[in-house]
Amino acid sequence: MTDTDVLVPWPQLDRRHGPWPDGVRVHVWDGVTPASELPQDVLDAVEFWVMPYAVPDADRLLPRLPRLRAVQSLSAGVEKLQPQLAEGVTLHNGRGLHDASTAEHALGLILAAQRELPRWAADQVAGRWEPHFTRSLADSRVAIVGYGSIGSALETRLLACEAEVVRVARRARPDEGVHAIADLPELLPGLDIVVLVLPENPATVGLFGPKEMAALPDGALVVNVGRGRTLDTEALLAETVTGRLRAALDVTDPEPLPADHALRHAPGVLITPHVAGGSAAFRPRAERLIVEQVRRWAAEEELLNLFPRP
Amino acid sequence: MTDTDVLVPWPQLDRRHGPWPDGVRVHVWDGVTPASELPQDVLDAVEFWVMPYAVPDADRLLPRLPRLRAVQSLSAGVEKLQPQLAEGVTLHNGRGLHDASTAEHALGLILAAQRELPRWAADQVAGRWEPHFTRSLADSRVAIVGYGSIGSALETRLLACEAEVVRVARRARPDEGVHAIADLPELLPGLDIVVLVLPENPATVGLFGPKEMAALPDGALVVNVGRGRTLDTEALLAETVTGRLRAALDVTDPEPLPADHALRHAPGVLITPHVAGGSAAFRPRAERLIVEQVRRWAAEEELLNLFPRP
Repeated sequence: MTDTDVLVPWPQLDRRHGPWPDGVRVHVWDGVTPASELPQDVLDAVEFWVMPYAVPDADRLLPRLPRLRAVQSLSAGVEKLQPQLAEGVTLHNGRGLHDASTAEHALGLILAAQRELPRWAADQVAGRWEPHFTRSLADSRVAIVGYGSIGSALETRLLACEAEVVRVARRARPDEGVHAIADLPELLPGLDIVVLVLPENPATVGLFGPKEMAALPDGALVVNVGRGRTLDTEALLAETVTGRLRAALDVTDPEPLPADHALRHAPGVLITPHVAGGSAAFRPRAERLIVEQVRRWAAEEELLNLFPRP
Repeated sequence: MTDTDVLVPWPQLDRRHGPWPDGVRVHVWDGVTPASELPQDVLDAVEFWVMPYAVPDADRLLPRLPRLRAVQSLSAGVEKLQPQLAEGVTLHNGRGLHDASTAEHALGLILAAQRELPRWAADQVAGRWEPHFTRSLADSRVAIVGYGSIGSALETRLLACEAEVVRVARRARPDEGVHAIADLPELLPGLDIVVLVLPENPATVGLFGPKEMAALPDGALVVNVGRGRTLDTEALLAETVTGRLRAALDVTDPEPLPADHALRHAPGVLITPHVAGGSAAFRPRAERLIVEQVRRWAAEEELLNLFPRP
């Protein structure tokens, strides 16, 4: 193909991943440096842009890229980006890049809750040494509600820990053993752990409420690594202050959780500040995707992770 | 075979696992009830005894079992039991029963350290919400030092988390990709995490000392779920108070760790009170072993887990 200009967020990817394909001129913009420092002839030439990650106003560059034909986001959720793209510009999302990080964080939350790590950490600094038997993850029955690519990555980890997994998604997929969310009332009483991995949309807001919690057995663990508003915070607070249910949450509603929120002090509740996706596991996976997409772009092959127009 | 009498530690195993084999009379002693309450004709008849778990003086029953031919312990370490058995009585240990529990606790410690769960738990109650990127387990290079059945169970879990595993044991086993402990000096600089799963014996006491720690890269995580004395506590304290190394320990030296021990307050150090093996994962695995051993006993097949005479 003729030469093409590509804009990526990190320098020297070719040092770690091998030389760029012939004919590709690679430029770098990290999203933090003022865009005004990018030479005008580069802006005029860029055809494929890999946007910097977690830079909320990076999209301000869009109107300045007249030859743009494809955009790669490193986020999975690109609903707000889509309408800003001109006709004919394809959008590709970061589906899968956060799976390993999010799944391992969910696993860490589950293990911390089952094996009582917050209690031992408190005992550590308080000078106590009072061992007792705990729950385990092995043999536990764990529902993954919102079974997609993160759920699948979590399942791999749970099965390795000898847990049993129940797959649940919006619609049943019987050939994949996936139950429908509508089946939750029958499934909940048999669970030890339920993990929410749901996006936020009108169908999921408040999906896990007082009725669902009441259907869980005593001592069950509720985990949320999806979006805070899919879980009814007041209902969870009521079920945890009594000690009937336990919880491990990476997302909350509201978020950030106010400093004086009662959920912070409910027994058996562990909260992390929306960090499931934000670990060192992200960067190498993002780099590998970028390198592969640039290779495809140069070879005029179809790019991965096309986000369809509505 | 003719009828045989078996003594087990838990009642009603047949309710959960199906009826006992024909010809087997099963009696129960939990190790807590005074042994004097066991009928004399039962004591006189018992040929196969499954000892109650974690009852230190359960062995006081041994001299009262004249027809004993086989003993099943639910512990892995039976070195102190062996010399008490009469000639001709075989000893079978609990090898494997604690693998799932210990491996998942080690995994929980690793994830808690990599994903900074103790920090988030402290932020939770302090009213903070200050997310930042953390390390991950994915892509980390983890050495398992003392690669046996627990190590193998841990490896399964680590691989599911997309970590890389380096197997290390006393002797190299090249066909299984196991390095010798003597190779540690070359291996240590390339590790992110080292997990000790070593028994305590003259060859392992103090095995991981100042030299080994100095060879680890900055920020590496030292995990111990084996025996406390295999790790040099003073050396670890020196490397953690400066923040150069991190640690997650289920066993310590001394143990219990004194209430005022400085290691409790060293930054990046997480300590649990020797609870890795003590979880709900133990009981069902122990029950399955008992049921299988009684089936083999009745069928006059060889029992599993024979512990050889020295």
